[in-house]
Amino acid sequence: MNYDAFFNDQLEQLQSEGNYRVFAELERDACHAPYAKMHGRGPARDVTVWCSNDYLGMGKAGFVRQAIADAVLSDGAGAGGTRNISGTATQHVALERELADLHGKEAALLFTSGYVSNWASLSTLGAHLPNCTILSDEMNHASMIEGIRHSRANKVIWKHNDPEDLNRKLAALPPDGARLIAFESVYSMDGDIAPIGEILDVAEAHGAMTYLDEVHAVGLYGPQGGGIAERDGLAHRVSLIEGTLGKAYGVMGGYIAASTALCDFVRSFASGFIFTTALPPALAAGALSSIQYLRRSDLERRRQQANVAKLRARLDALRLPHLDNPSHIVPVMVGDPFKAKFLSDTLLEQHGIYVQPINYPTVPKGSERLRITPSPLHTDADIERLVAALSDLWSQCALNRAVA
Amino acid sequence: MNYDAFFNDQLEQLQSEGNYRVFAELERDACHAPYAKMHGRGPARDVTVWCSNDYLGMGKAGFVRQAIADAVLSDGAGAGGTRNISGTATQHVALERELADLHGKEAALLFTSGYVSNWASLSTLGAHLPNCTILSDEMNHASMIEGIRHSRANKVIWKHNDPEDLNRKLAALPPDGARLIAFESVYSMDGDIAPIGEILDVAEAHGAMTYLDEVHAVGLYGPQGGGIAERDGLAHRVSLIEGTLGKAYGVMGGYIAASTALCDFVRSFASGFIFTTALPPALAAGALSSIQYLRRSDLERRRQQANVAKLRARLDALRLPHLDNPSHIVPVMVGDPFKAKFLSDTLLEQHGIYVQPINYPTVPKGSERLRITPSPLHTDADIERLVAALSDLWSQCALNRAVA
Repeated sequence: MNYDAFFNDQLEQLQSEGNYRVFAELERDACHAPYAKMHGRGPARDVTVWCSNDYLGMGKAGFVRQAIADAVLSDGAGAGGTRNISGTATQHVALERELADLHGKEAALLFTSGYVSNWASLSTLGAHLPNCTILSDEMNHASMIEGIRHSRANKVIWKHNDPEDLNRKLAALPPDGARLIAFESVYSMDGDIAPIGEILDVAEAHGAMTYLDEVHAVGLYGPQGGGIAERDGLAHRVSLIEGTLGKAYGVMGGYIAASTALCDFVRSFASGFIFTTALPPALAAGALSSIQYLRRSDLERRRQQANVAKLRARLDALRLPHLDNPSHIVPVMVGDPFKAKFLSDTLLEQHGIYVQPINYPTVPKGSERLRITPSPLHTDADIERLVAALSDLWSQCALNRAVA
Repeated sequence: MNYDAFFNDQLEQLQSEGNYRVFAELERDACHAPYAKMHGRGPARDVTVWCSNDYLGMGKAGFVRQAIADAVLSDGAGAGGTRNISGTATQHVALERELADLHGKEAALLFTSGYVSNWASLSTLGAHLPNCTILSDEMNHASMIEGIRHSRANKVIWKHNDPEDLNRKLAALPPDGARLIAFESVYSMDGDIAPIGEILDVAEAHGAMTYLDEVHAVGLYGPQGGGIAERDGLAHRVSLIEGTLGKAYGVMGGYIAASTALCDFVRSFASGFIFTTALPPALAAGALSSIQYLRRSDLERRRQQANVAKLRARLDALRLPHLDNPSHIVPVMVGDPFKAKFLSDTLLEQHGIYVQPINYPTVPKGSERLRITPSPLHTDADIERLVAALSDLWSQCALNRAVA
C-alpha cells in the first residue's frame, strides 16, 4: 500500500470541498495588539486581528507577561515531570486553590488544555461510573464528543439547549445507573447561551450529575469572571464546571472545579491527567495573576461588551447579516466554504483585516461563517474599518443584506 | 445515586492497595537545581530531586529561560486560538521546520503535549487508513494505547521488543489493508531500547508503516540529539518519529516528524490537533533554543551519561539491585507498592532525597520501583549521598542485596 498516496488523495478531496486549511502565520507584538504582521497567506502584511480567542487581551497584559517571565527566570521552563513524578510545583497548587474558590467548589484540577480536560474527565467518568449514560447536548464541542466516545458509556444526544427534550430522554432511561448531563454555557460558534437553570431543574429531578463546559465564559461573565453559572447564581448547583486558561485568561491550560471526591477521582484515574507532563509552573503563575485580576476588575469585560454592542449596531445599521445572540461572539454567516474563504482573503488583501473563515469540521457544512470576536483592545476606528470593509464586500459580491 | 460516595469508595480501594498518590509539591529555584524545597509530604524540607524527566537540566538553562521570558514579554502569553484560527505564530513555524530538519524528515507538526501527539496521531491514522491494523508493542505508553483504542482500528499486540513475534503477527494478517507498527525507542520505566533496525526490516518486508515514539530519547541520543534512530542511522527508514519538548528539551509540547503528506493529513484530520489552543509561542521559542543548542553541544549528554555510569557502578559496588539497561534510566526494583512508598518516604525524611515511588498503573502491579534519573546537574557528592542512603535503608529493612 502506498501510504503517502492515500494521504494525498484525502487532502485533495478536502481541497476540492474548499475545506483545506492554510494557517495564517502571525508575527506578534504584545504592545501593538490587536495588530500583527501576517506571513503565509500571500505577501507579509500588517493586519488587524479580529478572530482571536484571547477575548479580553489578557495574553497581552503587562502584568500577566511579567508574571510568566519572572517565574520562568526564577524557577525554570518546564515542569520536568508528570504531576505525580516531580512535576507538581507550588504554582500548580496555588492555581488549583484559586480556581476552586472562583467557582465556589471544594477543589479543582489542572490539565494541559481545555481539550484534554474535557476528553480526560468525560472519558474517565463515563468509563467508571456504574452503568453510566451520558446525555450530551447535540452541539457539544469536539473534545466532549471524543471524551464521551472514548468512555464507551451509553450516549444519548438531546436537542440543543432544550431542557424539555432532555427531560424526555432522561425519563425514557431504565431506572438504574449513573446519569451525566454534559453541556456548555456559551457555545463557541453560534454564541448562544444555555438555559442552565432549567437544565439543572431537570437534572435534579432525575438525580443526574451535571458537567458544564464554560470555556467561552470564564473570565467573561459573572461579577468575578466565574462564567455564566456565576452570573446566574447557579454554580453551587452544577456538579462540575470545566474551563480554560487559554482564552479569556490569555495563557494555556484547562481545568475542572468540583467536589473534592470528584476531582480526586479524576486525578487518580484519568489517563490523560496521569501520564502527561504537567503545565509549566510559569504558565500557572501567569494564569493565576490573570484570574485574580479579572476577579477584581470589571473594566475589560465592560469595554469588550461595549465593543460587541458597537459592532452589532454598526452591522445592523448597514444591514450586514449576523447571528443574533446574547454573547460576545459575532458570527457573520456565509453558508459556503468557498465564499467564506473568498471573503476572508479579500478582507485580508484589500483591507488588512484578518478574520479566519470557519469551515467544516468546526461548523456543519452549509453554515460556514466569519466569526468575529471584538476585544477591549479594538478601537472605534478599528470597528469602523471592519464594518466599512464588510459593507464594501457585500456590495462588490452582491451578497444579500439583512431584511430591515 | 450518590456520586461522591461512589468516588470515595473507589479512592478508598486505591488507598487499601497502596496506589493512592500524594503529590509532592516542589518550590523550585532554577539556579539551585537539582535541589528544591518540598511541601505537601510532611513538613517543608530541602531535597535533592532524583526523579525529574528534565533529563539534561535544560529547563534550568539560562538561555532557554531567557528565550521564553523574552518572547513572552515581547509577543504575549498564550497563542489566543487554535492553529487555524489566529493561533499560529512565527515561533511555531520555525520550531516545526527545526524538528523536521533534526529528524531528517520533510515536515513536522506540533501538539500541546507528547500525550496528545500520540493519542491524536494514532487515533487519526488508525481511524482513517483503509482497513487498518495497528501492531502495538505490548509495553507501549498509555498515550499510544489510548490513541489506538480510540481509533477503533484492528489491534494486534506483539511481544515486547521481539521482531520475530512481530513478523509472525504480520504474516498472519489477511493480505489487504494498511499496517501500522507502533513502538518506542527507549521504554520509560525499564529503560530498555528497541531493536529498531530489526523491526524496520520486518516492517519493510511486510510493507508496513512505522510509528516510533522517541520521547525518552530525543535530545539524549544521537550526535545531534535526534534520538536512537539518529544514533543508529535509521531515521530515514522510520515513517513517523514522535517526540516531546517536555523532557530532555526541558519545556512543554509534543510533535511528529514525517513526510509532508503524513503531517498534512494529521494536521487536517486530527481532532486533538484541530480543536485545541496552540502552544504559547514563547514555549515554542524556548524549545527551539533548547533543540538548537543540543544539536551543537554534546556536553550535557556526556555529563549525564557519566553520572549514570557512576551511579550504576556505586550501586553495583554495594550490591544494590537495579535493572540493567543500556539507557539513562536507573530503576531500583522493589516489587511492592507499600515498600516502594516506605522507601521513598524514608529517603525523604531521613536523607532529604526525593525519588517518587512508581506504582500501578504506571508500572504493572508487582513491579513497583524507585526510578532514578541522574542528570548533568547532580554532583559526585549527590551520588554518594544517594547511594549511602539506599545502602543504609537496605540494611535497616533487611532488603535483599544483589548477588555479587
